Amino acid sequence: MELQQIIDIVRDVSRLTDCRLYDIKVTEKDGPANIVTSADLAVQQALIARLSSLFPGSHFLCEEEHLDNPEANDDAPLWIIDPIDGTANYARGIHDCAISVAYCVGGQVEMGVVYLPRTNECFSAQRGRGAWLNGEAIHVSDRSFKESILCTAMCVYHKENAPICAGIIMETYLQANDFRRFGAAAPELCYLAAGRVELYFEYMLSPWDYAAAQLVLTEAGGVASDLEGLALNPARPSGILAANNAENHARLAEITAKNLKPYSRY
Amino acid sequence: MELQQIIDIVRDVSRLTDCRLYDIKVTEKDGPANIVTSADLAVQQALIARLSSLFPGSHFLCEEEHLDNPEANDDAPLWIIDPIDGTANYARGIHDCAISVAYCVGGQVEMGVVYLPRTNECFSAQRGRGAWLNGEAIHVSDRSFKESILCTAMCVYHKENAPICAGIIMETYLQANDFRRFGAAAPELCYLAAGRVELYFEYMLSPWDYAAAQLVLTEAGGVASDLEGLALNPARPSGILAANNAENHARLAEITAKNLKPYSRY
Repeated sequence: MELQQIIDIVRDVSRLTDCRLYDIKVTEKDGPANIVTSADLAVQQALIARLSSLFPGSHFLCEEEHLDNPEANDDAPLWIIDPIDGTANYARGIHDCAISVAYCVGGQVEMGVVYLPRTNECFSAQRGRGAWLNGEAIHVSDRSFKESILCTAMCVYHKENAPICAGIIMETYLQANDFRRFGAAAPELCYLAAGRVELYFEYMLSPWDYAAAQLVLTEAGGVASDLEGLALNPARPSGILAANNAENHARLAEITAKNLKPYSRY
Repeated sequence: MELQQIIDIVRDVSRLTDCRLYDIKVTEKDGPANIVTSADLAVQQALIARLSSLFPGSHFLCEEEHLDNPEANDDAPLWIIDPIDGTANYARGIHDCAISVAYCVGGQVEMGVVYLPRTNECFSAQRGRGAWLNGEAIHVSDRSFKESILCTAMCVYHKENAPICAGIIMETYLQANDFRRFGAAAPELCYLAAGRVELYFEYMLSPWDYAAAQLVLTEAGGVASDLEGLALNPARPSGILAANNAENHARLAEITAKNLKPYSRY
């Protein structure tokens, strides 16, 4: 398995996203904030077909409803796929949306590809080998906490958690430089990897939102964990704290812990 | 004066922004959140030179320090220029940054151009004639308040106002769909014009941040005002409320007024 093979497939399949906005068929999954489009389904189907033929017997963990391959065996690799991360952005013509594909063996992400079709940016990474943007090595920035920009969100699928998020965002914002909310987790984690922003907080993400991007980030020198600062299990939903270095990550984790404490049941 | 002449000049001058990130020289104006780069200064100088020769005797109101043209007379047109709106994004390699040029006569913006060099998107408008993206007519979306995305910020140059902004953002967010913070006012107002988002709130902007973009927005069918719902004077700093239609604008104005009331001195 070569990283370039995955990149080639993702770039090829991304042509399915290239249509006029009024040709995109949007279906609500759970209210107007959680939608799926005809392009999500087409991309997912094409990725499963192409990756299955590359690696017969693979397992698949995908955002859009899909039964796992019945012919997969326990030792087979796992593909964690978001056909379009940032579907709301995609359906509105906003640039920040991406196809995300993670290749996992033994519970570990070995390769990751995050491709933004609208800006033609292909972020990729291989464990222990590095991270790249369109083939060029990328690295996190060396900015201090005070100079940092935080990428974040307010738990759009479960707005009852918005006040917790707002507390963490506000405290970080007042100690750092600024914040951004581009509206798609995988691109945002890759922006952190490329040195465009420095901090990242999301209350809860699904595996397909972050599995590929967290490898891009860590291979670019960044740090990622769950909300308690523990290692991520990329096959499970998780909150995410990430930063350009361990010092900034620890400070973000401290702010997060302090703000989560009043809500803890323990 | 033809709109196309301004577009041609802006596109031509935008080549000055096309350099590697490590070649951009950043200078802090007032802390790390408010910066200027070598490209801002080069673009502004080139725009003044080109527009002056197109229209001798013009007035200029520009973001970066500049004395107005001593040869301008009272009846001469006024150019309101932001050489790079979203300088922090520009210096970090983030896409959302733009050259903004507004052509004003008699206190009214007659033409506006907002050009994003990194995505090659040229938003333009002429009063009473319409708004365009790369020559194609654009229009605001018809989404309801509940379906709307709010673009916003938390007063990064005066963070003492962040709690007021946070209150308005949170109340709007809970009633609408989601929020975004791309980090540059002129592109964000143009995204609203193109139907990508529906609501916009900024506590305080400078004329060069919004003069051109508010014309793009209103010519695309949108509504823009100051924080009290009154008409904008594009030569003055102002808070901005904007929306895809009058109904959503009125609801955003109501939320804003309610949240501003405790801070009012009257």
